[in-house]
Amino acid sequence: MPDSWLDLAPDTEFGLATLPYGVFSTDADPATRIGVAVGAHVLDLGAAARAVGAPFADAVAAPNLDTLLAAGRPVWDGVRAALTAWFTDPAFEDRIRPHLADRASVRLHLPFTVADYVDFYSSEHHAHNVGRIFRPEQEPLTPNWKHLPIGYHGRAGTVVVSGTDVVRPTGQRRPPGEQAPVFGPSTRLDIEAEVGFVVGTPSPMGERVPVDSFADHVFGVFLLNDWSSRDLQAWEYVPLGPFLGKSFATSVSPWVVPLAALEAARVEQPAQDPEPLPYLRGSEPWGLDLRLEVYLNGNRVSRPPFAGMYWTAAQQLAHMTVNGASLRTGDVYASGTVSGPDKEQRGCFLELTWGGREPLVLADGTERTFLEDGDEVVIRATAPGPDGATVHLGEVSGRILPAR
Amino acid sequence: MPDSWLDLAPDTEFGLATLPYGVFSTDADPATRIGVAVGAHVLDLGAAARAVGAPFADAVAAPNLDTLLAAGRPVWDGVRAALTAWFTDPAFEDRIRPHLADRASVRLHLPFTVADYVDFYSSEHHAHNVGRIFRPEQEPLTPNWKHLPIGYHGRAGTVVVSGTDVVRPTGQRRPPGEQAPVFGPSTRLDIEAEVGFVVGTPSPMGERVPVDSFADHVFGVFLLNDWSSRDLQAWEYVPLGPFLGKSFATSVSPWVVPLAALEAARVEQPAQDPEPLPYLRGSEPWGLDLRLEVYLNGNRVSRPPFAGMYWTAAQQLAHMTVNGASLRTGDVYASGTVSGPDKEQRGCFLELTWGGREPLVLADGTERTFLEDGDEVVIRATAPGPDGATVHLGEVSGRILPAR
Repeated sequence: MPDSWLDLAPDTEFGLATLPYGVFSTDADPATRIGVAVGAHVLDLGAAARAVGAPFADAVAAPNLDTLLAAGRPVWDGVRAALTAWFTDPAFEDRIRPHLADRASVRLHLPFTVADYVDFYSSEHHAHNVGRIFRPEQEPLTPNWKHLPIGYHGRAGTVVVSGTDVVRPTGQRRPPGEQAPVFGPSTRLDIEAEVGFVVGTPSPMGERVPVDSFADHVFGVFLLNDWSSRDLQAWEYVPLGPFLGKSFATSVSPWVVPLAALEAARVEQPAQDPEPLPYLRGSEPWGLDLRLEVYLNGNRVSRPPFAGMYWTAAQQLAHMTVNGASLRTGDVYASGTVSGPDKEQRGCFLELTWGGREPLVLADGTERTFLEDGDEVVIRATAPGPDGATVHLGEVSGRILPAR
Repeated sequence: MPDSWLDLAPDTEFGLATLPYGVFSTDADPATRIGVAVGAHVLDLGAAARAVGAPFADAVAAPNLDTLLAAGRPVWDGVRAALTAWFTDPAFEDRIRPHLADRASVRLHLPFTVADYVDFYSSEHHAHNVGRIFRPEQEPLTPNWKHLPIGYHGRAGTVVVSGTDVVRPTGQRRPPGEQAPVFGPSTRLDIEAEVGFVVGTPSPMGERVPVDSFADHVFGVFLLNDWSSRDLQAWEYVPLGPFLGKSFATSVSPWVVPLAALEAARVEQPAQDPEPLPYLRGSEPWGLDLRLEVYLNGNRVSRPPFAGMYWTAAQQLAHMTVNGASLRTGDVYASGTVSGPDKEQRGCFLELTWGGREPLVLADGTERTFLEDGDEVVIRATAPGPDGATVHLGEVSGRILPAR
């Protein structure tokens, strides 16, 4: 990466290779506005764009990312090119520096208005493990699994920004061997380490979005924790899928990394056999070498590798619209739990503890099957950037509060 | 009902017993605004409220129902009381009449911004029939069915107003006896005749909404057609539920009938055995004697009775929030297909034709299993009103366009 007039350490989180977008406010100015994370700073993007007289100033002088998302790929590329120029060309320093805030001191908000939220199920390792745990008498993968990226709609209204506490959900569960359910706080509260994608450019109802149009529609990438209550889910999910086991909360990281930052992270996805139907075949690789880490109360418990996902985000987008469903600006879709082939690469406690039968012993000596009140989960990720740089996806965190 | 200075025939659709809310525009004024249907007229509610100096004028002088929905039960009751006064007291005629438009000439729009959309599955007759058709080797009702109102999230972005054409969806289906899917237009396109509910008053994350708070949160009722592709659905729905088989379109009637109009239609729901868990028990009846009719190309094919639904909308709301999921203004939830015990009371063609095996012979002599291109489906409903009056829910219609 080119040098910056900013004091960016070589190993800084959010160097010039990343330049992610979020929404922040400060004690001095509680109005929410778009920020760009760079090193230890946050740039007030709208104020900077006005100071410079950037042509995209109207799209970014906004309380959240919605207008920028709707502006489309040429504007996204223009903003990113401008940011790189501002931070590397000393001629901009006088106009840009006044609009930097200390990143440690700002408050971060949900970066955009979530339209619809779809959750996929695209890690073969995860699906295989869950199938063995939930349906041991059957084939772990359902017959459709390798023909289409299985997905379902989740609750958009409970998507919250990283750092939001999560109240332990209450509901029905059926104890093993019983016929009737009991009522109470969930006893098998879990996470799912996922990667989320946000749609910028909408599409009309009745038309499909081809696999190769992925980068025209999707703005960027973030981390997502699909909190899951396994006991509620197991009782409710046949025949219409997960509902209350998931809908109480979904946490997202505050910094949306633009697709353009992930060019160096693009890899071939795993070989697909059988070959998918033509509408799911693309001409460019959209596997992404994102390297996730999951921490429980500061102990790293997993390192899920996103590069091994069976279905790519480009295929998921094509599938989601093949029936003519429209896309709206702010539509979110998530990868599904990211799990690798190894035990320490599993993206949820259901798998890590094999349905709760094999407790996890943490580095600090404590044991866990599922989450306890007060537990804090943090998911982080990085990806390879250009010229040996590292792209940072930041983190999504959340702490469990007792049931009410 | 009291007399009106308006020319309302005794059997008029949308008499004073109904007074539903919608959003309209006219050729002369394309701006969308709130309308109230009354007989052959639409009242421009915002303009009328300003003319009268009503205290709620700000909440109803709006491009759609969102602000009125958010205003809460006391405002809803105040607006309805004012409407009744305006149309019955001749002293208001001079100020109200100028704000009436010819209902046949206005254009109707989606009445509010849909937040989340949840679809339930609460007719025992429907669930029983579908279970027998889709899973003939198993018990028709899953073990959870009588313990909780099964539901799942649908796609809010493809909820469209009545009269919107529906493009036949395309996707994967697996022909009988085959291992691999084929791709193409859906061959088993269906409807589901349902009743929708819209949330006005939100609730915070982490808190439950009790059954008895139903009328504090839910503003009103409308008709909903949950268009369904049975071939896409059958192939995709295990294990995470319906997705593309439903997400291409959901049509809603344009007139939202306030709960207050349905007081005379409230009935006891069917007896529930086993008794539901305490959080699903309410102290007041919320069965609703809505009488649906389904028309295909002008032929009445079914008369589904809503009064027989096993789970009420009040129970559905309590269940949807028992895990702490928040409610937002504009959240929609639907009953699930309304089917009665008799063949001519079934709310979808899957049931009416028993999985396509028993074609329906229409009054005009044509036969149908599933929908053909050009078919138009209309769902209407009425309910008993006060003093022998009839409450009208209007209709939701849609025509099938060929796949693209």
